[in-house]
Amino acid sequence: MTQSPAPAPAPAASFQNIAVIGGGAWGTALALTAARAGRDVTLWARDAGLVAEMRARRQNSRYLPGITFDEDLTVTDHLADCLTADALLLVTPAQTTRDLLRELGRLGEWRGPVVLCAKGIERGTGQMLSDIVREETRGAEAAVLSGPSFADDVARGLPTAVTIAAQTADTARALCEALASPAFRPYASTDVTGAQIGGALKNVLAIACGAVVGRKLGASAQAALTARGFAELTRLAQALGARQETLTGLSGLGDLILTCSSTQSRNFSFGLELGQGRFASDLKAAGGKLAEGAHTARIAVTLGARLGVDLPICQIVSRMVEEDLPIREAVSELMTRPLKSEMTNP
Amino acid sequence: MTQSPAPAPAPAASFQNIAVIGGGAWGTALALTAARAGRDVTLWARDAGLVAEMRARRQNSRYLPGITFDEDLTVTDHLADCLTADALLLVTPAQTTRDLLRELGRLGEWRGPVVLCAKGIERGTGQMLSDIVREETRGAEAAVLSGPSFADDVARGLPTAVTIAAQTADTARALCEALASPAFRPYASTDVTGAQIGGALKNVLAIACGAVVGRKLGASAQAALTARGFAELTRLAQALGARQETLTGLSGLGDLILTCSSTQSRNFSFGLELGQGRFASDLKAAGGKLAEGAHTARIAVTLGARLGVDLPICQIVSRMVEEDLPIREAVSELMTRPLKSEMTNP
Repeated sequence: MTQSPAPAPAPAASFQNIAVIGGGAWGTALALTAARAGRDVTLWARDAGLVAEMRARRQNSRYLPGITFDEDLTVTDHLADCLTADALLLVTPAQTTRDLLRELGRLGEWRGPVVLCAKGIERGTGQMLSDIVREETRGAEAAVLSGPSFADDVARGLPTAVTIAAQTADTARALCEALASPAFRPYASTDVTGAQIGGALKNVLAIACGAVVGRKLGASAQAALTARGFAELTRLAQALGARQETLTGLSGLGDLILTCSSTQSRNFSFGLELGQGRFASDLKAAGGKLAEGAHTARIAVTLGARLGVDLPICQIVSRMVEEDLPIREAVSELMTRPLKSEMTNP
Repeated sequence: MTQSPAPAPAPAASFQNIAVIGGGAWGTALALTAARAGRDVTLWARDAGLVAEMRARRQNSRYLPGITFDEDLTVTDHLADCLTADALLLVTPAQTTRDLLRELGRLGEWRGPVVLCAKGIERGTGQMLSDIVREETRGAEAAVLSGPSFADDVARGLPTAVTIAAQTADTARALCEALASPAFRPYASTDVTGAQIGGALKNVLAIACGAVVGRKLGASAQAALTARGFAELTRLAQALGARQETLTGLSGLGDLILTCSSTQSRNFSFGLELGQGRFASDLKAAGGKLAEGAHTARIAVTLGARLGVDLPICQIVSRMVEEDLPIREAVSELMTRPLKSEMTNP
């Protein structure tokens, strides 16, 4: 008999085999996380060269440089290899979600949970990614993994907490058990809408925050704008049926705070350039790819108009992106208009 | 006839004469702000040497170095000079509020609004500063000015937005009109409790965030903790009767985001030292003055126990301050316990 504590019980989940679709930084970090949690993990990437490198060197030097895989991972460029898993983590860019699910559907039928790990709203349709799962699969359950998390932090094993929302509580709990480890703490929810909307809108708000910082307006203005951005996010999300506790949680406020305070975010950096006086049309003409939030801004404004929700910050970001609204005017509106409705009962 | 726009109408407020009590950085910045808004301003400081310097050199080089007063200010070390004002801004440290009001009461009777600009809860009694105004004056109206704002940003004219809450809507609006200028935007509220509680609790949460950063746990962990801190602040504030829109506004979430992300805050810096492995008792023994949040932590825990509200982050900060809880244990609890209640309906 030893005095060491009993081993933790095996997870009640049936999700022992996890397939991660997408070999970018976040997909690779999540694959490592699942392996650390004791799962059998298959990581798919489309690029055969990247797959060969990950197999041979146990590294993803293109997207996650400097981190060696100590974990046991199966890396593949055959998408069909994912069909034998118990759960799928979909970590390809948001706008490719529909195509990817169709491609998977041609290879076989998927009925397990699809955990959406990218953030965004589909451009052409304005649909949430969970709607796409419903349309493009035969009854697969949509789930969402979202929260304040940099791929690099997660890959290096720094403590991270995220929300995992699924349509049913049982699936949400089982996914949490499958992925949890001491450094990675998922919390279960059934608010699939709420867990998605924060991640999509934060990119727009990060552009606005970047613009205020690029214009050197100070930390006070940045904090005020982040708080107003949260109020705006809350209004739209509640109109879509999200729950308040999801919005103040990790996938809402937590993720917003991280994105709006960090120059690591592409959206924040894009806003920073606008704040320094460059125009979106010049950045486009220079061949730069627009940050995701630049596209989401217009979609959010359209959605807000349909639902009767006022989204002043999204409107200004959309006008900066679509109409080259000069930064001087944009900032003046950012610091005034959004604040008018601060108090409902003065 | 010229084509220039008509001048803005004079404020409806009767608050033309403003007295600012307290010649620290924040008091001086607010005095400059009121003068820029067109008010006649008297700035009181106890220290005759500081007063003489501000008069002679038009600077407060001790607390606000590098900023010259272009505005017209009357600077005095006679507290009685403040009694002729229409409104008082009280900008002395939170724990001196009662003594200051008693001192003022011995010099004459004050019946106008007292705008509380310091943040905190009285140590001995656990009372909010607005309760002290009620006890120590004969019917003066308590108001609160609070929001994300660094004195330096405000003094330099960077855009800042704050909440001004008063017991009556008329007073709140009149105070806003008296202090508003293009760079300084106050928003009126009647939620005096809500506007105070955010400012008091954020200091405790900033210590926790500083500890997580000092321990090098990464930006993801810091953002997750800030979001959980906001949930904790909301629970306590609602139990005290605060309104939700105040908590998600400038004086709540806005101020929290600024304090939890900036090393400029004394509380954050104190947490940073604890995160690097130093003990509160050593910092005390070394003659260091504890940050305000170190005192507020225990008061908040007591208040929470009385109201039946669970405050796990405040409890851990209190144990670090009072019992030298080692950082390893503190951080493990900070990253796990506060998150257990994330979702109420998984």
